[in-house]
Amino acid sequence: MQAVNSGTTRRQLLTAIGLVGGAAALYQAMTTMGHAAETQFHGPPKLDGAKPGASVLVLGSGLAGMLAAFELSKAGYQVKVLEYQPRAGGRNWSLYGGDTYTELGGATQKVGFAPGNYLNPGPWRIPHHHRTLLHYCKVFGVQLEPFIQFNHNAYVHSTKAFGGQPKHFREVAADFEGNVAELLGKAVNQKALDADLSAEDKEKLLEALRNWGVLDKDMRYVSGLQSSSHRGYDRPPGGGVDGAPIPSTVLDFSGVLDSKVWNNMAFFMNHEMQTTMFQPVGGMGMIGKAFARQVQPLITHNAKVTQIRQDKAGVTVAWTDTQSGTASVSKADFCVCTIPLGVLNQIDNNLSPALQTAIGAVPYSNSVKIGLEFKRRFWEEDNYLYGGHSFTDQDIGLISYPNNHLFQDGPAVVLGAFASGMGAYRLTGMTPEERIETALTQGSVFHPDNYRREFSNGASVAWSRVPWTLGCCARWNEETRKDYYQTLVAVDDRVVLAGEHASYVGCWMEGALLSSIDAITRLHKRALEA
Amino acid sequence: MQAVNSGTTRRQLLTAIGLVGGAAALYQAMTTMGHAAETQFHGPPKLDGAKPGASVLVLGSGLAGMLAAFELSKAGYQVKVLEYQPRAGGRNWSLYGGDTYTELGGATQKVGFAPGNYLNPGPWRIPHHHRTLLHYCKVFGVQLEPFIQFNHNAYVHSTKAFGGQPKHFREVAADFEGNVAELLGKAVNQKALDADLSAEDKEKLLEALRNWGVLDKDMRYVSGLQSSSHRGYDRPPGGGVDGAPIPSTVLDFSGVLDSKVWNNMAFFMNHEMQTTMFQPVGGMGMIGKAFARQVQPLITHNAKVTQIRQDKAGVTVAWTDTQSGTASVSKADFCVCTIPLGVLNQIDNNLSPALQTAIGAVPYSNSVKIGLEFKRRFWEEDNYLYGGHSFTDQDIGLISYPNNHLFQDGPAVVLGAFASGMGAYRLTGMTPEERIETALTQGSVFHPDNYRREFSNGASVAWSRVPWTLGCCARWNEETRKDYYQTLVAVDDRVVLAGEHASYVGCWMEGALLSSIDAITRLHKRALEA
Repeated sequence: MQAVNSGTTRRQLLTAIGLVGGAAALYQAMTTMGHAAETQFHGPPKLDGAKPGASVLVLGSGLAGMLAAFELSKAGYQVKVLEYQPRAGGRNWSLYGGDTYTELGGATQKVGFAPGNYLNPGPWRIPHHHRTLLHYCKVFGVQLEPFIQFNHNAYVHSTKAFGGQPKHFREVAADFEGNVAELLGKAVNQKALDADLSAEDKEKLLEALRNWGVLDKDMRYVSGLQSSSHRGYDRPPGGGVDGAPIPSTVLDFSGVLDSKVWNNMAFFMNHEMQTTMFQPVGGMGMIGKAFARQVQPLITHNAKVTQIRQDKAGVTVAWTDTQSGTASVSKADFCVCTIPLGVLNQIDNNLSPALQTAIGAVPYSNSVKIGLEFKRRFWEEDNYLYGGHSFTDQDIGLISYPNNHLFQDGPAVVLGAFASGMGAYRLTGMTPEERIETALTQGSVFHPDNYRREFSNGASVAWSRVPWTLGCCARWNEETRKDYYQTLVAVDDRVVLAGEHASYVGCWMEGALLSSIDAITRLHKRALEA
Repeated sequence: MQAVNSGTTRRQLLTAIGLVGGAAALYQAMTTMGHAAETQFHGPPKLDGAKPGASVLVLGSGLAGMLAAFELSKAGYQVKVLEYQPRAGGRNWSLYGGDTYTELGGATQKVGFAPGNYLNPGPWRIPHHHRTLLHYCKVFGVQLEPFIQFNHNAYVHSTKAFGGQPKHFREVAADFEGNVAELLGKAVNQKALDADLSAEDKEKLLEALRNWGVLDKDMRYVSGLQSSSHRGYDRPPGGGVDGAPIPSTVLDFSGVLDSKVWNNMAFFMNHEMQTTMFQPVGGMGMIGKAFARQVQPLITHNAKVTQIRQDKAGVTVAWTDTQSGTASVSKADFCVCTIPLGVLNQIDNNLSPALQTAIGAVPYSNSVKIGLEFKRRFWEEDNYLYGGHSFTDQDIGLISYPNNHLFQDGPAVVLGAFASGMGAYRLTGMTPEERIETALTQGSVFHPDNYRREFSNGASVAWSRVPWTLGCCARWNEETRKDYYQTLVAVDDRVVLAGEHASYVGCWMEGALLSSIDAITRLHKRALEA
């Protein structure tokens, strides 16, 4: 350790260990050095020594496909990418004013947002520990800005609590913590937990509960300035003669429990949701565009894959140009297939039966996002909300305030729904117009005065109606992981699958990238053995 | 209500009520309308009808003084501002490379930061509910950006816990919540709280605790993937063959209690500290500069006030030009005095004895801030920390990572200390060089490999050594509020005091502004009666 701290840097040593011993040795070394591995990303893949002339066909130009194309061509492979859409980026996608989108079923939306405004139908936030994505954002010049994930002042709404009146997160969360602290303090003082806590820890715990839960000297959570210092005031502290604050009144604990605010509190503590988070300046789609700038000459757009065949000689992919209707065939030594499983499952192929079974075994989640453009930022001006989410148990799930151009005049886009489960199914069944109408009705619980008054226009994406994914993302469970995951990710002779579906970071761009790195690293090894 | 929702906007109605009925009527109306008064700011003061020729002398060009000058001159008063410093802004202040600062005792620091980097010695973050400040920032064109207050990945360090090893906030906070949930669940299941909870609420509470505290099916908080989903993993989920996550190990609960992480958890729930927060682009001092652009012609700099006298005829202020040594006298009908109390207390005056007593009765807090410039953002690159604070029980109190220019290469400034209490006294007693050395030693607990290696240069401000404030800000307590506050804020014949010390939002710019609005509103009334 001394040597590490004085001479070589940790990073230099870790890089050396990684090069010599591989990922497992690297992981062990990092853990030993107390440098907990907060990511599985250890730098871009080292794919040295591609066989001269070896070729790889990449199917799909989402982030996984483009990363594979970028790194494999850098390593010396001859790479060609086939992409169904006229656009690269896949689910990394922003809808801007002027864009047109047609969903399965034929409904077409012409987006009417003002210049600079957008909806991110797919990914919309980047955790600080998604190191692969952040690495390539930096390398490819994607400018990032903070995504305001946590907003104490935003609302929590439940149709089953407080007569359907939304409450500020700060109020309900403070009251939850205060009541939990008071109840646990009572139990401790009644010696109910003497078997679990030493006398010393009991004292420390009581001190902790008093401070964390803003309890009074009798260990009670009551209305007053003390609880108001967490939950907010009826009139906050001010200046001059009338400067004294007026405390607020704590909510009924049954109501607090009914609101299920603990859901939201746990959400914010979810490792994937923890601060600090980021978004690209100008929309999430900027990432796809930046990747595309690196590999655009390799991509053939409007190419609908109709058949995948492999044999001793190589891989043969048949595809149709969706513009001209012309049928073509592309051949290569190997193939990285990033086509979403629901689509891939419908493509004729001679992959191994086990892989075919795995491809068909993983269901995709549904999800619906709706963007609502309003004429002014009333949530900022009238409600003091800057970014963050107001949660509801209605179908829309939440509304989320924009994180860019804070304080600016003019129109801005609120995420008017991020629905999943039953809510998403119901919204998916509607026309785009009905979805907007539903989003306005349900979102009005938070902003009754302004939501309809200031509304300008909207757009929606229901992921099970997206023609090129047929769903949002792969929904693994413990059972399917055990039965199919290793088969799905294994190199199948000359073909390897990559994408968020081939990762444990499902539904995140990071999963797609980590999957891609792992897939091409193993494919490269396979290619050298060939 | 119906009329409000359909025709007039709430804001229009509230403005009308405010104009007719004043602040009290406005407050009542807002509360009645369910529009909780989240601020005491109801728009700029309405100071119509100044007596032609009436004059006001403003002492001090901090935010309170400049706001008074701006609004009073707008209302038609003849305003002159006397300022001790060559710079306007007061405690709203940023130190940049090339700046020179001399503290009481004579130590002079020449700041060596790279262009664009800065230390905010005074205020450094703006809560979303500080509406007065945000209003004037918008009106005066101050560009704001998010201040990243909450960072789950930053560290908590206690010399008394975990052998002095810092832990991530997420780890200790998750373990605190998990243990609290498990203990309370146990107490509930042992029927220890049957007197406090209905059977129905017991069930709801158990469901809440299980989810909020990520407990297992037996209501235990244990090491595993479930607790890791909050506290973080030993190896997080990844992609491909080795994608499965490796769970982390929960900490000993005694250690968690010793770490006093509940202090930090309560800090984040403090209304004044809650997200979303902001900072001006380019340093907090941009606000003072923006205010100064509005009133600069009214300000006389380098004017040291030596005497304040009032009589039937008006207010007479004697002052010395600190550059030339020339003594001068300024006269006006009225005076707004924003000089910090510790300095004002030393100026010869004939204010009422009661006010003089009040001025001398309020002690000022101490506090020390240290800025450390490092050659690269190792906290981002190696530790995945973007903004936010790492807390310690050492003298430095915390270190805070920069919120601007995230992901950029090149040098950046960390707030290397924000000390108060005994820590601040000890740091104040040191030379600037010793402060830097102490900050490097203590901050190294968080970043042992990089803190000294990457250090470039630093600067410090110990507020009780600041010549023009003699302390950081007014430290009221319940006792002094009762005895002196109303006297301090009352118009004393022709003089009224304003500043954060004349507010309940002590130590915040918002307090200075709200105090100033209230003071000049009452002074204007007094002037009309004169």
